[in-house]
Amino acid sequence: MKQPFDPPDPDFANRIKESFSNQKFMSLIGAKLVDVQPGYCEIHLPFRDDLTQQHGYFHAAVTTSIADSGAGYAAFTLMPTGHEVLSVEFKVNLLTPGQGKLLIAKAYVLKTGRTLTVCRADVFVIKDGQEKLCAAAQVTLISLKPKVD
Amino acid sequence: MKQPFDPPDPDFANRIKESFSNQKFMSLIGAKLVDVQPGYCEIHLPFRDDLTQQHGYFHAAVTTSIADSGAGYAAFTLMPTGHEVLSVEFKVNLLTPGQGKLLIAKAYVLKTGRTLTVCRADVFVIKDGQEKLCAAAQVTLISLKPKVD
Amino acid sequence: MKQPFDPPDPDFANRIKESFSNQKFMSLIGAKLVDVQPGYCEIHLPFRDDLTQQHGYFHAAVTTSIADSGAGYAAFTLMPTGHEVLSVEFKVNLLTPGQGKLLIAKAYVLKTGRTLTVCRADVFVIKDGQEKLCAAAQVTLISLKPKVD
Amino acid sequence: MKQPFDPPDPDFANRIKESFSNQKFMSLIGAKLVDVQPGYCEIHLPFRDDLTQQHGYFHAAVTTSIADSGAGYAAFTLMPTGHEVLSVEFKVNLLTPGQGKLLIAKAYVLKTGRTLTVCRADVFVIKDGQEKLCAAAQVTLISLKPKVD
Repeated sequence: MKQPFDPPDPDFANRIKESFSNQKFMSLIGAKLVDVQPGYCEIHLPFRDDLTQQHGYFHAAVTTSIADSGAGYAAFTLMPTGHEVLSVEFKVNLLTPGQGKLLIAKAYVLKTGRTLTVCRADVFVIKDGQEKLCAAAQVTLISLKPKVD
Repeated sequence: MKQPFDPPDPDFANRIKESFSNQKFMSLIGAKLVDVQPGYCEIHLPFRDDLTQQHGYFHAAVTTSIADSGAGYAAFTLMPTGHEVLSVEFKVNLLTPGQGKLLIAKAYVLKTGRTLTVCRADVFVIKDGQEKLCAAAQVTLISLKPKVD
Repeated sequence: MKQPFDPPDPDFANRIKESFSNQKFMSLIGAKLVDVQPGYCEIHLPFRDDLTQQHGYFHAAVTTSIADSGAGYAAFTLMPTGHEVLSVEFKVNLLTPGQGKLLIAKAYVLKTGRTLTVCRADVFVIKDGQEKLCAAAQVTLISLKPKVD
Repeated sequence: MKQPFDPPDPDFANRIKESFSNQKFMSLIGAKLVDVQPGYCEIHLPFRDDLTQQHGYFHAAVTTSIADSGAGYAAFTLMPTGHEVLSVEFKVNLLTPGQGKLLIAKAYVLKTGRTLTVCRADVFVIKDGQEKLCAAAQVTLISLKPKVD
């Protein structure tokens, strides 16, 4: 599904690393930005006991947060310098419990437009060396133009 | 939209308080279970600097997490003793930035069935004493029967 | 949930009636625009044998189509003259089979912005004089500015 | 994304053809079941003037209806004899106007379980010999066991 995209800002990767590092909530949960390509973003999240729901698995909110965040940065790779990205809405299916030692969110752009971008994001949980799809999301993002002073 | 529901387990409120207190992720972010009624649940979340996105507002993932969690417990109020609740999927619209000192998620059951329950959840942000709708979610939940040994 | 909205185009009702009458698919299925208020729209659809799924009930696609269409026109009531409205995305829960002689979609605006509007739409089925909620939707719409020649 | 699925009912294709032919709404709009494989379904819909919205393109409801229907039958390929399939909910992004002479919905199973199945469905519009993604859906379906008399 990954398509050849041509990012308008060649320095998109640094811009995204900086934005990601400013998201204090991503630091709180220990999420790591692992890969950014034009139209693609991958975020990893190691298991921690304080990220769990009542059965001791990754909380759905945590799983979802890296799907949404990955989609935001996948979209952001294709936006011009100075623009900002915001999630308009998303939908996620929680396919199987997040039981394992690592979550990997892989997000990719389906369609990019002047205002709106639509992404899909898949979250995999790693257990005993096996990668299992545990959540599937579809996300709409908006590009906000820089305000002129 | 709140309807008169008749919960099969009269002790639902205690059951939910216990389940909520076992969600370590809810403790991590400081979410508080404030009200549970048949088919209804309200969760509050005070602002904290480590819950923010890059502009210093509540992170969308945080806003979403209490919408989903509220929906789960609203559905759970109507489930029989011993059953468990899981989110199947949800969709959320992020209507306005979560800028304020408190988030309030109000979740209510739209339709309850033997297997599936559908809820809506609205999240309000409180700023300067004003309550503003900042996210609107629709959530599908499944009731899991206790396993027989 | 209906809020006091102030439509920028006082002639919105006529504009919407004209747009609705130009949707040939709405004619094909026999949908009727019954009420338009600022931020609100109601569409009715009488049962017909060729609108059914394999069990002889209203097809989910039909139920959904009037939810989406209602949401589009609820949003459209609040847009300036010359603008157009398009659905960006929607999500619908099908709560109960559409078994009855009439469907009624009631759509209302949750949040309106310069570019995007978010609506909810509820579809009721009428059977034996009883109104039953059979579908619940949440819809994101975009306002397109008129093109300058 | 297509995975090797092992359908419990070897006669699934005939079962699906029969079910599809009983959906009168699919006949009304002229939809054709073109391909069914384990975990996969493809539906085609030729352009017709009475399937349009106000600009003369395929109505979003029509585009959506074959995405949802395709997902239902993709899920149905993996269900045991006698079971029925119902859409629980779906979400669709309308990526680009449905302007062309043919719509093609390709739906595939992401995850199948005892009760619920989750599918994705992509709808392409064919114009001037080019295939363009115009809608992307994610659908949750439920398998209903046959009732015992």
